[in-house]
Amino acid sequence: MAYVRNAWYVAAWNCDLEVCKPLALCILGESLVIYRTPSGKLVALEDRCVHRFAPLSLGRCEGERLRCMYHGMLYDPDGRVVEIPGENRIPARARVRSYPIVERHDWIWVWMGDAVRADASSIPPAVGLSDPDWVLGHGQMDYAAEARLICDNLCDFSHLSYVHAQSFGASETWAKSRPHVTALDRGVRFERWIVGEPRMRARGEGTADVWSAYEFWIPGILLMSSAAYPPGTAAACQQQAPPATLAGEGMTFTSQAVTPLTDQTARYFFSWGPRRGHGDEALRDVLMEIANRAFTEDRIMIEAQQRVINNTAPRKVLPTSADMGVTLYNRLVESLAAGERAGPDERAATAEVPA
Amino acid sequence: MAYVRNAWYVAAWNCDLEVCKPLALCILGESLVIYRTPSGKLVALEDRCVHRFAPLSLGRCEGERLRCMYHGMLYDPDGRVVEIPGENRIPARARVRSYPIVERHDWIWVWMGDAVRADASSIPPAVGLSDPDWVLGHGQMDYAAEARLICDNLCDFSHLSYVHAQSFGASETWAKSRPHVTALDRGVRFERWIVGEPRMRARGEGTADVWSAYEFWIPGILLMSSAAYPPGTAAACQQQAPPATLAGEGMTFTSQAVTPLTDQTARYFFSWGPRRGHGDEALRDVLMEIANRAFTEDRIMIEAQQRVINNTAPRKVLPTSADMGVTLYNRLVESLAAGERAGPDERAATAEVPA
Amino acid sequence: MAYVRNAWYVAAWNCDLEVCKPLALCILGESLVIYRTPSGKLVALEDRCVHRFAPLSLGRCEGERLRCMYHGMLYDPDGRVVEIPGENRIPARARVRSYPIVERHDWIWVWMGDAVRADASSIPPAVGLSDPDWVLGHGQMDYAAEARLICDNLCDFSHLSYVHAQSFGASETWAKSRPHVTALDRGVRFERWIVGEPRMRARGEGTADVWSAYEFWIPGILLMSSAAYPPGTAAACQQQAPPATLAGEGMTFTSQAVTPLTDQTARYFFSWGPRRGHGDEALRDVLMEIANRAFTEDRIMIEAQQRVINNTAPRKVLPTSADMGVTLYNRLVESLAAGERAGPDERAATAEVPA
Repeated sequence: MAYVRNAWYVAAWNCDLEVCKPLALCILGESLVIYRTPSGKLVALEDRCVHRFAPLSLGRCEGERLRCMYHGMLYDPDGRVVEIPGENRIPARARVRSYPIVERHDWIWVWMGDAVRADASSIPPAVGLSDPDWVLGHGQMDYAAEARLICDNLCDFSHLSYVHAQSFGASETWAKSRPHVTALDRGVRFERWIVGEPRMRARGEGTADVWSAYEFWIPGILLMSSAAYPPGTAAACQQQAPPATLAGEGMTFTSQAVTPLTDQTARYFFSWGPRRGHGDEALRDVLMEIANRAFTEDRIMIEAQQRVINNTAPRKVLPTSADMGVTLYNRLVESLAAGERAGPDERAATAEVPA
Repeated sequence: MAYVRNAWYVAAWNCDLEVCKPLALCILGESLVIYRTPSGKLVALEDRCVHRFAPLSLGRCEGERLRCMYHGMLYDPDGRVVEIPGENRIPARARVRSYPIVERHDWIWVWMGDAVRADASSIPPAVGLSDPDWVLGHGQMDYAAEARLICDNLCDFSHLSYVHAQSFGASETWAKSRPHVTALDRGVRFERWIVGEPRMRARGEGTADVWSAYEFWIPGILLMSSAAYPPGTAAACQQQAPPATLAGEGMTFTSQAVTPLTDQTARYFFSWGPRRGHGDEALRDVLMEIANRAFTEDRIMIEAQQRVINNTAPRKVLPTSADMGVTLYNRLVESLAAGERAGPDERAATAEVPA
Repeated sequence: MAYVRNAWYVAAWNCDLEVCKPLALCILGESLVIYRTPSGKLVALEDRCVHRFAPLSLGRCEGERLRCMYHGMLYDPDGRVVEIPGENRIPARARVRSYPIVERHDWIWVWMGDAVRADASSIPPAVGLSDPDWVLGHGQMDYAAEARLICDNLCDFSHLSYVHAQSFGASETWAKSRPHVTALDRGVRFERWIVGEPRMRARGEGTADVWSAYEFWIPGILLMSSAAYPPGTAAACQQQAPPATLAGEGMTFTSQAVTPLTDQTARYFFSWGPRRGHGDEALRDVLMEIANRAFTEDRIMIEAQQRVINNTAPRKVLPTSADMGVTLYNRLVESLAAGERAGPDERAATAEVPA
């Protein structure tokens, strides 16, 4: 797996982390336990007791601390063992790794890289479930496939015409036209007009010009808004972004996150819903039904793709012009990952100036 | 796996391949998609899109063609990509392997070797379900075992006395006597009289002299007829084949095919039933019940054998005189496979003249 | 796996081995078939026919012998093939390994090492179910974990305070105090007073001084007695073993055996119950319910520990003073196993004098 380690990974929806209930999870192949203390602090530790490797996620929260429930080692939030039952002396090496962890936009984020470089201000601007401007539903899904394949999928919407012809009601235009793709420092931006797209059944009859714009951020965060405009709007805007003053209809926002669990599994988190005023809770629920159906379509295809890759001799992909965003994103990942593998000196020379 | 590649493998019963419904299967570890076009043509392609390796078996038939339903590449029956949505140019390397495929004797056969050597006239003379001379039932069964072990089983009927004492009502004579075994160019012939064999319950009381003759063809095709004769017939024939003019009773025919899926799995196809006039549909159904029971007995034994082989250190088999057919057949396979691994020149010198 | 081979392993409860019903099992990664003949003799053979490796455990008992039900090879209890159907000559190499096997203390024991060194008198003095002095229940449990981890667990009862706080009602004293540990020739002895331990609910209210003494024998046999005494007894005995003349109450005995099946699986056999006069069948059943619950707690923890070990980079354990018995036992195993790997000469020099 070539993944960027110096990045914030979505570990869970915040509502799934109850106070004093340790949660086991795996990110980039590393087993972690996360828990929320009675004071509200979040803790993320290596999920392996120093003593005999029992998982701390089977442990018991004691105030801010976590006790391994095999032989009773007690851990501080920084990973240090502070009590060994029946012992006076605690060896210096009795500590596990702790990970930077923050809660933002209703997601729990964990930093998998060098702790001194963790900076919560670099978390992408997802829209939280509690944001008053949006009426959002949320869900998650586990994949028996490498996260990279899901990122590839999200960086090339030409698949909408085939994978999601029924669920999203996507026309062939998604496959036949190309978005405007822009490389960002930590991601890729995709923008396009889809002209004459049939409205989703939930949104009434007829066609619309749909403006679709999203950013796909390291390490796999998609933030997208869409809105429909009367036929002719795309042409009137000369295929550029509609001015903010132009009111679209059926505006929605979706935040999505792809988290690599192991090299063959991933977890996919998503929210979606209308802008307040553009739809209500009933519409949100309809959209979430569609999303669950559509993301299951993706999952079936991508898991099948993973099985083909596993069962056949390695071969180079044959990219098309629709893969421009995929290629840009993967180059960015490889450049950042290569920079991390190099030492700090080389890092300055390579990772900071991706090719 | 040492298997012969230049051979026709049974891929499916023809009734299981509906028009425009792509069918995924694996032969010799290679993933294939096969489909039947509206015009009746059969197509067999490598089941891996050139673009990003999605399986074409999740695709959609469009006339004679097959479209990958991930990003829409459209394939001709010869494996060439003829459309990439949104692209004008199609790279020359945008093609997957296509396999010779024919329908014969109600089986779909796929040629896994060098396409220029595929010759449908070399397909063994199995008896199709629609043959008016026979009243045949059919079935199939998947094995968690290497095909080779099933072929071994079918080349040594001494197991009938133990594995099938109940189902086929086979006596110990099957184990204690030996068939007459003849090497063929592409298989092995087995013939014998079983004298004083109890009749199967379905065929009445008493004993009979049973003439059993079958050929076992590369790459795993068994074609066998059996008939019962009054006690004393074997002696009267001096243990030779009964003359065609001598009417047996309860004559049956079975066609069977063993197809290696992966190196640890196989699919077993079979038909069985009485000669028309020697039995009706009711007898056929009784025979198929017996066959399903007996072949399950084989499967249990062979899958257990496979597990033992997998879990223990490699060791040489200890062949007995009952293994003569097994040995001949396996030598033939090894000789042909070795010839295929060698270049075309050596092939002429080795494969054509098996030792 | 570093395990001692020259040892008696528990293969089964004797009540689970019916006459003429071959039983398949795996010890130290070796597949065995064991059976009981009509004359009462026990037989243990390698579970792999010499012919084509079918498992003999699918075979048929014929008197004292076992017939492979694939092609009919017949085996004597010493492992020699004595009949090949249809053959006159039997090759000398037609034999499988046979293992020393005895029945004692209601367990079936198999010797996995050098047969000439097998000596039933070295079987540990477990208490059989039929012993008139005790009222014993019994059970067994399969682990998806290496046997070594279970042995570690049984050599360090500090886990009782955490894993079994509810089931056994164990106080923190088990973790905070240390037993007296003594190295034996073929095991380790553990003795201690637990002062002021709450009585198990089944045994009434209040506290008691509990004397707990057990030996843990190669290759994983735990033999333990416990008894409760009035508060103050431990002090009166100066923390030494209570004299035999001092009647305890609620005296129980448990025999336990850990058998490595493969390098990732194990089987755990156990009995438990009160001394006759200290409790009846009803108490025995209550204790067995508690035992099943507690041993499930162990299994959950140890299987989780195994998964952590499998999924993470190897690392050294961080032993505490509570691990003294674990360390002694594992050193003994390693010393004996190293002696077995060395030749007979070196064996005298190393295994007989463990460091």
